[in-house]
Amino acid sequence: MKKHNFSAGPCILPQEVLLKASEAVIDFNNSGLSLIEISHRSKPFIEVMDTATALALELLGLEGKGYKALFLQGGASTQFLMTAYNLLETKAGYLNTGTWAAKSLKEAKLFGEVVEVASSKDANYNYIPKGYSVPSDLDYFHCTSNNTIFGTQIKDFPTSPVPMVCDMSSDIFSRTLDFSKFDLIYAGAQKNMGPAGTTLVVIKEDLLGKVTRAIPSMLDYKNFIEKESMFNTPPVFAVYTSMLTLQWLKDLGGIAEIEKENNKKAKLIYSEIDLNPLFKGFAATEDRSTMNATFNLVDDKLKDTFDEMAKEAGMNGINGHRSVGGYRASMYNALPYTSVAALVEVMSELERKA
Amino acid sequence: MKKHNFSAGPCILPQEVLLKASEAVIDFNNSGLSLIEISHRSKPFIEVMDTATALALELLGLEGKGYKALFLQGGASTQFLMTAYNLLETKAGYLNTGTWAAKSLKEAKLFGEVVEVASSKDANYNYIPKGYSVPSDLDYFHCTSNNTIFGTQIKDFPTSPVPMVCDMSSDIFSRTLDFSKFDLIYAGAQKNMGPAGTTLVVIKEDLLGKVTRAIPSMLDYKNFIEKESMFNTPPVFAVYTSMLTLQWLKDLGGIAEIEKENNKKAKLIYSEIDLNPLFKGFAATEDRSTMNATFNLVDDKLKDTFDEMAKEAGMNGINGHRSVGGYRASMYNALPYTSVAALVEVMSELERKA
Ligand SMILES: Cc1ncc(COP(=O)(O)O)c(C=O)c1O
Ligand SMILES: Cc1ncc(COP(=O)(O)O)c(C=O)c1O
Ligand SMILES: [Mg+2]
Ligand SMILES: [Mg+2]
Ligand SMILES: [Mg+2]
Ligand SMILES: [Mg+2]
Repeated sequence: MKKHNFSAGPCILPQEVLLKASEAVIDFNNSGLSLIEISHRSKPFIEVMDTATALALELLGLEGKGYKALFLQGGASTQFLMTAYNLLETKAGYLNTGTWAAKSLKEAKLFGEVVEVASSKDANYNYIPKGYSVPSDLDYFHCTSNNTIFGTQIKDFPTSPVPMVCDMSSDIFSRTLDFSKFDLIYAGAQKNMGPAGTTLVVIKEDLLGKVTRAIPSMLDYKNFIEKESMFNTPPVFAVYTSMLTLQWLKDLGGIAEIEKENNKKAKLIYSEIDLNPLFKGFAATEDRSTMNATFNLVDDKLKDTFDEMAKEAGMNGINGHRSVGGYRASMYNALPYTSVAALVEVMSELERKA
Repeated sequence: MKKHNFSAGPCILPQEVLLKASEAVIDFNNSGLSLIEISHRSKPFIEVMDTATALALELLGLEGKGYKALFLQGGASTQFLMTAYNLLETKAGYLNTGTWAAKSLKEAKLFGEVVEVASSKDANYNYIPKGYSVPSDLDYFHCTSNNTIFGTQIKDFPTSPVPMVCDMSSDIFSRTLDFSKFDLIYAGAQKNMGPAGTTLVVIKEDLLGKVTRAIPSMLDYKNFIEKESMFNTPPVFAVYTSMLTLQWLKDLGGIAEIEKENNKKAKLIYSEIDLNPLFKGFAATEDRSTMNATFNLVDDKLKDTFDEMAKEAGMNGINGHRSVGGYRASMYNALPYTSVAALVEVMSELERKA
């Protein structure tokens, strides 16, 4: 039985992407060689890298605006330190909206003064702080667009007088935004883009070259810009599969189209959470993420019954993160509406039974 | 036509590994889910990681000797800086035997004093320096076991009075060595182990905790030891495929068995290089690598003819690196003897024709 895959990441990818990626591992474009046994400096792979980076910029509407797209290794967590290494000369501001935001802030402290511009830690990160303003004496302002663990999402980004850096790991390519508001965007591939093992960095070139410290080669964005993500051997399979997913998204109609689907899925699950008396949502209503819906049972005694029913119905990955408990349904781009409908059906069934 | 794949890395992998990896991208162990869409914290993936790290230690004969095996991201190039970040307090010594060795030395200079213990740069790295001794006032001594670009290989490692760190990217698992002579071994997967996208680090735990600088979380070996390579999301596909290759090697009989094959392949190609008057070897005879055979045509006018014949015969990836020119036949563990025989046949054919 094919499962309903609500995993928070690594997570569901389009079936046609999996098929093509699987095929390429045996024979890449009828070359008689596997994708993973050819040189990354060969023409066919350079074409993959060029296509992937071009698609990323095109989908984000950032072509011809001074941005470069890079595929790096190390996960989004490496970006926590790379952003600071490359950009933090004196002082940076961080918006603390969850576990990942807090980790990015912690790394930055190794490189300079860090101001927590606002935080929702007081309420276990169940909301997005509002009404703060970004100081103008910062090297940059860092925020996290979507808080994977807590299920909150920034709907209105602040107007920032300083360059804005954003960790979009868990909602990139899921909704239309004016991406040109950001000077550096990064995202681990393993939610909306591909397998774990590569991280997309989209960076405005004029942001670089302003810190005085020496930067190790592998942490210096400039080296990867100059060598078009091939400063060293790139993670070939992860980049190729990301390229396939970006192509799939483009063929679907791009971000604007997938956003409609994502909104429908979110509406369906949140309606059930609200209407069904057995469940309550975790995140503040106006800050609810379209990617990760977090919710709890009102009465924990129903847990075993619900878990059993969900398992029977083929649900995978709906357990909440330990810092929130309860449930988390991650509904990334590739998750079909029918999977959300199936989960909602189990929730309704519990109500009918209980 | 299946090619003869002499690519220097990424490079040939065992056919059965490619088949299993391809299958797992569609359906992992009949779970109904792809390997790349399940949580890395799920039991099936934790098992993959545990198996891969255990196999690495077992094959190297380092079980129960205080070592940990880690699968990281960032390539061997990230190890150039991570080794120094974690180990270099005052002074380190480097053996400069090639491009990669020189790069590792360059990164270390950002973190402390660096002594070039010996170098073969004077002869474009065509030999391995000998007769040097490793100073005893170093934090560690760093060497490169096999010089991928130049085709030289250290046959006798020095006795080192300080911890020994070795970049074994291009010959790990290819020959028996007393691996317990080393305190830290690292190797990008993309030669003898798997696809690009993960790096094996084998580290003696008591080596750590001796530098005073603060280490960013993602560069701190301790975090990855503590979280068993899962400090953040690991490169799932690359680790899985590496596990398959290590299992393949174990089933073959381990390093001692593959070493016999590698010696046979090396003997075959070097005999041809020596006996065929049209070719000459690049590396000093006693330092010749069993992994990368570098050679040139005596008369460059035969280049087009030879290249055409090699192409006809299905040879892939035999062009030399630009810093050496000529040819490089990389003969990693998964390359069959028959591929070397086929290349030698083309070389003989050229002699018969010319
Ligand atoms: C918003 C966000 N940032 C960062 C990370 C860390 O990503 P990685 O594991 O690739 O380092 C995650 C992982 O889930 C995330 O959701
Ligand atoms: C001996 C050696 N060290 C380091 C590297 C760099 O590896 P990576 O591209 O994974 O950073 C290579 C790459 O070929 C190599 O052969
Ligand atoms: Mg979070
Ligand atoms: Mg309710
Ligand atoms: Mg070299
Ligand atoms: Mg000769």
